[in-house]
Amino acid sequence: MALFGGIEAGGTKFVCGIGTRPNDLEVHAFPTVGPVETVKQAVQFFQVKGGAKLAGLGIASFGPIDLDRTSGTYGYITTTPKTAWRNFDLVGSLSKELALPVAYETDVNAAALAEAEWGVSRDVENSVYITVGTGIGGGVVVKGEAVHGLLHPEIGHIRVAHDLDKDPFTGSCQFHGDCLEGLASAPALSQRWGRPPESLPVTHPAWELEAHYLASAIAILVYTLSPHRIILGGGVMQHDRLFPMIRRNVEHFMNGYIAKPQLREEIDRYIVPAGLGRHSGVLGAILLAGRGYHRRDAQD
Amino acid sequence: MALFGGIEAGGTKFVCGIGTRPNDLEVHAFPTVGPVETVKQAVQFFQVKGGAKLAGLGIASFGPIDLDRTSGTYGYITTTPKTAWRNFDLVGSLSKELALPVAYETDVNAAALAEAEWGVSRDVENSVYITVGTGIGGGVVVKGEAVHGLLHPEIGHIRVAHDLDKDPFTGSCQFHGDCLEGLASAPALSQRWGRPPESLPVTHPAWELEAHYLASAIAILVYTLSPHRIILGGGVMQHDRLFPMIRRNVEHFMNGYIAKPQLREEIDRYIVPAGLGRHSGVLGAILLAGRGYHRRDAQD
Repeated sequence: MALFGGIEAGGTKFVCGIGTRPNDLEVHAFPTVGPVETVKQAVQFFQVKGGAKLAGLGIASFGPIDLDRTSGTYGYITTTPKTAWRNFDLVGSLSKELALPVAYETDVNAAALAEAEWGVSRDVENSVYITVGTGIGGGVVVKGEAVHGLLHPEIGHIRVAHDLDKDPFTGSCQFHGDCLEGLASAPALSQRWGRPPESLPVTHPAWELEAHYLASAIAILVYTLSPHRIILGGGVMQHDRLFPMIRRNVEHFMNGYIAKPQLREEIDRYIVPAGLGRHSGVLGAILLAGRGYHRRDAQD
Repeated sequence: MALFGGIEAGGTKFVCGIGTRPNDLEVHAFPTVGPVETVKQAVQFFQVKGGAKLAGLGIASFGPIDLDRTSGTYGYITTTPKTAWRNFDLVGSLSKELALPVAYETDVNAAALAEAEWGVSRDVENSVYITVGTGIGGGVVVKGEAVHGLLHPEIGHIRVAHDLDKDPFTGSCQFHGDCLEGLASAPALSQRWGRPPESLPVTHPAWELEAHYLASAIAILVYTLSPHRIILGGGVMQHDRLFPMIRRNVEHFMNGYIAKPQLREEIDRYIVPAGLGRHSGVLGAILLAGRGYHRRDAQD
């Protein structure tokens, strides 16, 4: 049976995996350093563990990335704030070393697809996966497929209402200042409160403010994409008391305008934690590698 | 050849049409009054003009509307601020009188579909159509189909950044105050400036502020839906000097984060007026009636 390699290429760590689905996944994670050294480590893992058995590789990458196959920079990471990785040919360097067909997707679109295939959004057509960590990103699935268009969703960079009287922090995003990522990512929390989010007590006002900003963004997503489910993951969401606070804020913002039980009495099942835990990204990469393989197989 | 009826059911006027495509369309418009009288006028038009020739009816309605065929209120207009129309069975009352199969969609999704079929978004997969008038609404097309989900897009109700020092107007939306519709619809302009938008001089600061809010919303759409094209229509957009102002603000908000020519030197072709003018809604209704007919035909 064909095995697939998957990489969740994150800004903080690389998660490499081999398998076909959640219950046969073998993973190896290591910190993200410079592109050349990081790619080398990934290649070694797949050569040693995968050997000749791998039928394809999927990459679920932090972004923005170039997904346009007609573009001269297809497969690149593009305007990332991580300067060492800017304009790096991630797909090219891995496919050259491993001699495998490569499927490429954003980390969050891949995670959204994995959750739709095996996780908490199996039973619905349209869903959004949001990760809140070093950055904030969102993946969007419509009718079982990831949404692309001009580029791909970059949900972290939407601008949310920001009352400077109540929250004078001007934001940490180097492109936009106080966009969602600039106000609610882990670095934003660290800068605003002078300490990392994991050290903030549960009663700290940081959490209510965090829930307020994330709920603002979720309300926008309900009005634009109208998903059947919203999945929240990433480091900051490990503070699981955020969930009820976010749900309460979303109900407040919607103010009954969309008369659906999912936004009222069933909101606990509408805004949910990831079902595949920290592996949704790498599983999404494996899923895409498998889909590419079966598509090529069908064409032969 | 089969002819179809279409209705653009708007909050201000009903546009009824008979035909199959833009160049054989015959339209009749009249002001929207109470639901019973308005439906009666539409029925008369289709009975007199369409007679026995109509093979189906499409309705492109203001919203929110219930599009869920499993729901007890399928075909209704639901939580609209127009109280006489709240919870009115629009599909049921028309299909009963005309004895025709009825396709139902939001006015803006229908307009977005018509533009994708015959208008300015013919050449792209994903697009958004926004109308700015009595209300603000948005339709979303992904891969040639209108996006639904939990409900349907309600783009007018996204909350945009609002600096009360620069713009102390608290907003006109009865559900959300200063959401996009509450800040940038025609009634919001009238309330803020004490005169209707069509009477504001071209040099009035109202227009720069209007462009600012619409551009804020467009930037959010680029980050969430990543459309290949954004179409703007509706009464307020008849002030066509808004287009260059909006484009300039969008470039400013994006700040180069998404490195695509469509958001820089080609932005004139990215943010565009409707190609079907004021008829995109009724043409979308006719398009949907036709699609329903051909689907039924294929199943026979």
